[in-house]
Amino acid sequence: MSKQKEFMTEAVELSRKAIEQNEGGPFGCVVVKDGKIIARGNNKVTSSNDPTAHAEVVAIREACKNLDTFQLTGCEIYTSCEPCPMCLGAIYWARPDVVYFANTRKDAADIGFDDAFIYEEIPVDPSARKLKMVHLHDDAAAEIFKAWKDKTDKIEY
Amino acid sequence: MSKQKEFMTEAVELSRKAIEQNEGGPFGCVVVKDGKIIARGNNKVTSSNDPTAHAEVVAIREACKNLDTFQLTGCEIYTSCEPCPMCLGAIYWARPDVVYFANTRKDAADIGFDDAFIYEEIPVDPSARKLKMVHLHDDAAAEIFKAWKDKTDKIEY
Repeated sequence: MSKQKEFMTEAVELSRKAIEQNEGGPFGCVVVKDGKIIARGNNKVTSSNDPTAHAEVVAIREACKNLDTFQLTGCEIYTSCEPCPMCLGAIYWARPDVVYFANTRKDAADIGFDDAFIYEEIPVDPSARKLKMVHLHDDAAAEIFKAWKDKTDKIEY
Repeated sequence: MSKQKEFMTEAVELSRKAIEQNEGGPFGCVVVKDGKIIARGNNKVTSSNDPTAHAEVVAIREACKNLDTFQLTGCEIYTSCEPCPMCLGAIYWARPDVVYFANTRKDAADIGFDDAFIYEEIPVDPSARKLKMVHLHDDAAAEIFKAWKDKTDKIEY
């Protein structure tokens, strides 16, 4: 079995565990560094009452904890399904080298998940989304952005 | 001061705290239900080594914990900046009634954050993104999706 197949199989096994143990939806993920799994995650939305507890988010948080960093440079992510926009955003912020996925967003939509719907909504202007979004300009909020720009001891991410 | 202004001011104060206490980037968020703040969050990416610890994600997780649910039906979200795609995805999964935001994604890009770049990447086909993404079909992953579809005691979200 190739290493890629081995890591994907582990991600898929985590997705099986998620549903067999009623922890959440059928999604699993592993993070690999230097040819070894350094973190695992499976969906725990319904068991932990956390809508952000998707497999990728759980695995990324665990990997960062284990590596003591907020960046996954040099890491590979194997996930049993194409990341939803939330997880894809989390992946961009974590900055791994590559993402491997098995099932697709269409497969996820076909079994009742909102991934495809959210993908449609993201590029829409905030004022035109199905979710009501309202821009309230705030001078103090703008000032704090300026303070960040001018801050000399900031840690960028 | 209107209630909207009051809640946004609280979100902005959290963004100030985030940078003054070196917890993370200049972002704050509150979740409101029945006219009261039920959860607060500020960015803690760099202080908690968690790339997912954006203000909205922190506030949503806290709100769900406090409400003992994985859904924010009937809630309003006030955030000091337009949500990045990760946070927007988290918001769609949490399903609040409305989102109010102050600074925009362009304002965030202007002070060095990747929000606008990630917004550009999300609608691109996975095979064409700047981040390398590889589709590895896996029969077992497909089987587990089918098992979820057929599962009679599942909790949908």
